[in-house]
Amino acid sequence: MQKVRAGIVGAASLLSSVLLRLLALHRHVEIVLLVSETKTGKKVEDVHRELRGAISKKLVPYNPREIAEQCEVVFLCKSHGEFWKKTGELIALAKRMKSVLKVIDLSADYRLHDPELYPVWYGFEHKNARLLRDAVYGLPEIHARDIKEAELVANPGCYPTCVLLGAAPLFQAKVVDGTTLIVDACSGVSGAGLRPNERNLAMYTMENILPYRVASHPHAAEMEQELTHIARERIQVTFVPHVVAFKYGMLTNIYLRLKKRADYKSVVKMYHKFYQGKDFIRLLPEGEYPQIRNVVGTNLCEIGLVYDQRTGILIVMSVIDNLMKGGSGQAVQNMNLMFGLEEKEGLPSVR
Amino acid sequence: MQKVRAGIVGAASLLSSVLLRLLALHRHVEIVLLVSETKTGKKVEDVHRELRGAISKKLVPYNPREIAEQCEVVFLCKSHGEFWKKTGELIALAKRMKSVLKVIDLSADYRLHDPELYPVWYGFEHKNARLLRDAVYGLPEIHARDIKEAELVANPGCYPTCVLLGAAPLFQAKVVDGTTLIVDACSGVSGAGLRPNERNLAMYTMENILPYRVASHPHAAEMEQELTHIARERIQVTFVPHVVAFKYGMLTNIYLRLKKRADYKSVVKMYHKFYQGKDFIRLLPEGEYPQIRNVVGTNLCEIGLVYDQRTGILIVMSVIDNLMKGGSGQAVQNMNLMFGLEEKEGLPSVR
Amino acid sequence: MQKVRAGIVGAASLLSSVLLRLLALHRHVEIVLLVSETKTGKKVEDVHRELRGAISKKLVPYNPREIAEQCEVVFLCKSHGEFWKKTGELIALAKRMKSVLKVIDLSADYRLHDPELYPVWYGFEHKNARLLRDAVYGLPEIHARDIKEAELVANPGCYPTCVLLGAAPLFQAKVVDGTTLIVDACSGVSGAGLRPNERNLAMYTMENILPYRVASHPHAAEMEQELTHIARERIQVTFVPHVVAFKYGMLTNIYLRLKKRADYKSVVKMYHKFYQGKDFIRLLPEGEYPQIRNVVGTNLCEIGLVYDQRTGILIVMSVIDNLMKGGSGQAVQNMNLMFGLEEKEGLPSVR
Amino acid sequence: MQKVRAGIVGAASLLSSVLLRLLALHRHVEIVLLVSETKTGKKVEDVHRELRGAISKKLVPYNPREIAEQCEVVFLCKSHGEFWKKTGELIALAKRMKSVLKVIDLSADYRLHDPELYPVWYGFEHKNARLLRDAVYGLPEIHARDIKEAELVANPGCYPTCVLLGAAPLFQAKVVDGTTLIVDACSGVSGAGLRPNERNLAMYTMENILPYRVASHPHAAEMEQELTHIARERIQVTFVPHVVAFKYGMLTNIYLRLKKRADYKSVVKMYHKFYQGKDFIRLLPEGEYPQIRNVVGTNLCEIGLVYDQRTGILIVMSVIDNLMKGGSGQAVQNMNLMFGLEEKEGLPSVR
Repeated sequence: MQKVRAGIVGAASLLSSVLLRLLALHRHVEIVLLVSETKTGKKVEDVHRELRGAISKKLVPYNPREIAEQCEVVFLCKSHGEFWKKTGELIALAKRMKSVLKVIDLSADYRLHDPELYPVWYGFEHKNARLLRDAVYGLPEIHARDIKEAELVANPGCYPTCVLLGAAPLFQAKVVDGTTLIVDACSGVSGAGLRPNERNLAMYTMENILPYRVASHPHAAEMEQELTHIARERIQVTFVPHVVAFKYGMLTNIYLRLKKRADYKSVVKMYHKFYQGKDFIRLLPEGEYPQIRNVVGTNLCEIGLVYDQRTGILIVMSVIDNLMKGGSGQAVQNMNLMFGLEEKEGLPSVR
Repeated sequence: MQKVRAGIVGAASLLSSVLLRLLALHRHVEIVLLVSETKTGKKVEDVHRELRGAISKKLVPYNPREIAEQCEVVFLCKSHGEFWKKTGELIALAKRMKSVLKVIDLSADYRLHDPELYPVWYGFEHKNARLLRDAVYGLPEIHARDIKEAELVANPGCYPTCVLLGAAPLFQAKVVDGTTLIVDACSGVSGAGLRPNERNLAMYTMENILPYRVASHPHAAEMEQELTHIARERIQVTFVPHVVAFKYGMLTNIYLRLKKRADYKSVVKMYHKFYQGKDFIRLLPEGEYPQIRNVVGTNLCEIGLVYDQRTGILIVMSVIDNLMKGGSGQAVQNMNLMFGLEEKEGLPSVR
Repeated sequence: MQKVRAGIVGAASLLSSVLLRLLALHRHVEIVLLVSETKTGKKVEDVHRELRGAISKKLVPYNPREIAEQCEVVFLCKSHGEFWKKTGELIALAKRMKSVLKVIDLSADYRLHDPELYPVWYGFEHKNARLLRDAVYGLPEIHARDIKEAELVANPGCYPTCVLLGAAPLFQAKVVDGTTLIVDACSGVSGAGLRPNERNLAMYTMENILPYRVASHPHAAEMEQELTHIARERIQVTFVPHVVAFKYGMLTNIYLRLKKRADYKSVVKMYHKFYQGKDFIRLLPEGEYPQIRNVVGTNLCEIGLVYDQRTGILIVMSVIDNLMKGGSGQAVQNMNLMFGLEEKEGLPSVR
Repeated sequence: MQKVRAGIVGAASLLSSVLLRLLALHRHVEIVLLVSETKTGKKVEDVHRELRGAISKKLVPYNPREIAEQCEVVFLCKSHGEFWKKTGELIALAKRMKSVLKVIDLSADYRLHDPELYPVWYGFEHKNARLLRDAVYGLPEIHARDIKEAELVANPGCYPTCVLLGAAPLFQAKVVDGTTLIVDACSGVSGAGLRPNERNLAMYTMENILPYRVASHPHAAEMEQELTHIARERIQVTFVPHVVAFKYGMLTNIYLRLKKRADYKSVVKMYHKFYQGKDFIRLLPEGEYPQIRNVVGTNLCEIGLVYDQRTGILIVMSVIDNLMKGGSGQAVQNMNLMFGLEEKEGLPSVR
């Protein structure tokens, strides 16, 4: 079988280091092009030291023509707001060149379909409304059919992935009482990347737990868009994220009230039906709680449910590896779907 | 000034190691008696290695007569359910002996005034209803007057301390809409003590976050008792605790809805009024969030408030050192009150 | 190609959890038998939670006949001293049954060829001198040829693996001045396993570094045996191990003096020649130091060399993942060699 | 008693945050002046968040005249090489103004008496040879007499403090065989300060151990200067430091050979005699090893000795809190000596 020719833009980033390892071990992929503007000219093994001896390819400057010529898929690992314009130009150029290039964007630039949300949540104007509309939100457990046909997949944020996988069955079944969700979430420091900031310095994160962007994190908008879509009514989220003293993984706790007609047992059945045949979802038996140590290094999402009889609150707990199912692993899962490969191909899970 | 003669029962425990350090540095205290049944005969410095060279006193078996004779205050650092009967007997004996012994119980044995709650939440029958009624719940910011007169102070649990300090002003002012509270809490592993279990083995806690006793932790009963008392109506709590990958400190997030007439600014004022003159409360300015690293090693509680305009949810975040304000520090604060000392005496805070 | 039928004895251990994952993902292996005496009757996924949904096989009691009948290879994951007798009996039984069973022992029971060393270093008498002599020390970079023919491979200890890979080229080339080696080593807490002890409780290991068995750890004997063999003269090791506040990985620093005729450049050449074609050795360029974060999760050993011109001391630093190259990964590497498979098969390294 | 009027230059640094807490709690000190050029105009509580509500003083620009007028002691918390010239000018100015100002320099600028060493180890020319000669190396356990009379105390580096306290008794007694010392050391990330670098980003330090400046760290020069002075012969050190995955504390392991006439027992006696009456030294009984968790937050140095009979190597292990005895705590100890206060005053140790 011929290999998929893949490229990465932003190859010096932390997300890229995970993506590179996955692609290097993927038997149906050939890495053909690695773009970095901060580390142009360096060998990738000199930037990502854990790849020494494995990938000696040089990092090159961004050249859209080169990408359109050499790649069948390109992964965009840029910061939010940096690249949305170039993404549109790259896709247009590829079309003109009759290249069959597919694009997987790991930034937030094409996740929200409504352009009005960008100034509010991300602080920049997004002028490519057309592409925003056409981009597919790349959560395979929900949008697999569209992903297979997509030209541009917007790879979901880590928190939204974890929350949506946890909450989707309830909203689809319309058993949630009310339209406001409370989400309390804890992420490892890898979520803060490698550029020095308050949330990734060891002295501020070790032996600590850091609330940040309380009720103002832009991932809330992503959750609201998708839950509103699933529920077919306007859903809102109070979202409180924290950075916690570990490297990889995240836990999201969702608090909601069930409608009277729903009970714990019927809810559990809903989840099993909703996720039947989904390789990356692990539903826990009653009494077991998710733990990030069970999923770190894999593309799995582990989900546990607890119903508080006394207060009528349902607690949905879900965990993922924030750089795998919450980032590069999901990007590979999307690529597999887009190229007709087996969904699990190249994703190191024993499941 | 004459020194208060203090004893500890359960002196080999983790809480005791913190208490011993505080008492040893307290200029108005003399440690006269250290009881341990697991380590009888050992020197305390051989059990708590960080005290080597400081306290060479021997650990002795439990002898109530000896305590009543030698101590003016005794701290009980036993596991829940182990000692409630002996506590009652000790107090009765002291009375008979005309000893002025005061007791500070760091276990949960005298925190709940309603004996019916013990079988439900702690799995044992509590037969000393009278002492349960008379014991004072030792949260000084709320019950200072009663603590000063108390014979038996039930030192609050770590989670309830953090949650009650965070929520009390709102319930007293009756501005909370509804009677159910959601509390999502993260504690360091020191909360799990030193006896090996799933929540204190390094392999299960490092690089992990462990939900446990979800919606079934007995500290919920303590929160409900006190909030109900403050609010003068029945309050319920959905409480979800976690053990997280750090040693000391805890963060509790409280989610609730405000009544229409309340707004963020008036709420902030309430807090400042409620805690005026309270040395161990640090109210953060708007936009700042509490962090355990700011309070570890001190008896402080740091509180931050965020109002989510979009959903109408108020988020109260509070942090303490779980072994200090959430345990031994608060016990010393209670002792200070009980013996007419300055409330801050011997509590290492720069505030 | 037909799959190798593999079994594990001691399948509830920490080492086994890593081994199980490797074997489950190994395309030429079928797991046929899992023995555990502490967890008999449980499903393996209920013991190793991260395997939920992947391996539902039940843990069975030890039955040597069953092993000899069903397995081509069995991995022994027992504690030191527990099983040496049964290992001998199992091999004898297999021979009588004309089974072609091969054994890989992950304990220390067959690592030292001299039976006299067992009472000294491990505190028990070893009475199977014949099998001690015949067992092959399973360090593939040094004993590959013997491993391929072995019936019983003694999988090396974690520290000796790291130290021997770091020091072997120097002793083979006879450029070390003196016969005493100083080794200062740091291991993650996973080295202390899951049975509660002073070295794996979170309160004793987080925010700490714990020297233990200073100059008395039995892994010194293993290092001495192999270095003496390589150097063709008696070598001694002062070995100081520590448990450090991380989960996986280890670093060993070797301090020695070079003979006059050796210099840094020639030493570097030696290493490159010695390890030519070895897939799991990563020699770092001058000025780069090994880091466990570059090897955790892989079977790699990363080696760095620094020559202190001022004092004439050579510092060899090497790192491995203690449960992979220092345990289960190396066991799989040995199995690959014993069954004529590619040495890297099933070992997740991008190299 | 009148309070010592103290100032700090470089008050926004990590070392300062510890120093500020110590001085604020010191009953014989009044903080009169806080200088910071990076945070001029800010309140100190807005820079060091754990001081909120405690010290609201504003940070002011550097003005030597102001210091000489207002302070009796000034602590210099600047980076190495930045301030040596100004330090000389400040002292000269104070003399001209007849101010009795004493200076405690926490940087390396006046630790090495030989100006020639600065270009070699620190990369800058030091032109104040006279002050280098007159400055007192502020290790109170060794130089107490000189410290009491000093105008300028050079507060020792963290590693040298730990190594010198561990090795001094042996060199003074001249029982070390040879003149080269091997030192393998592990420090928490607080040693790397708060300015972002490879050694204080969480992603590079959590779950890792980072060798750095192997055999080239400038603290080696400090160790050599002082050991040479104590031993009265030229001593050299091969020094290998690491940053490890914890925040506070350090462990240094010293490897050396004893002269024939020395034995373990006599060595232990030497240590007890050498450190008799020294409040901050904790000598461990045989078989016990130092642990940073026993000293973090205190000004103690804990020392353990192991003699490897088989190889003749003596291992001296010592631990300190790198920001306390290895920094600000020692600075306060020096100040106490310089102002005739009790050496332990304001240093929170139960010993």
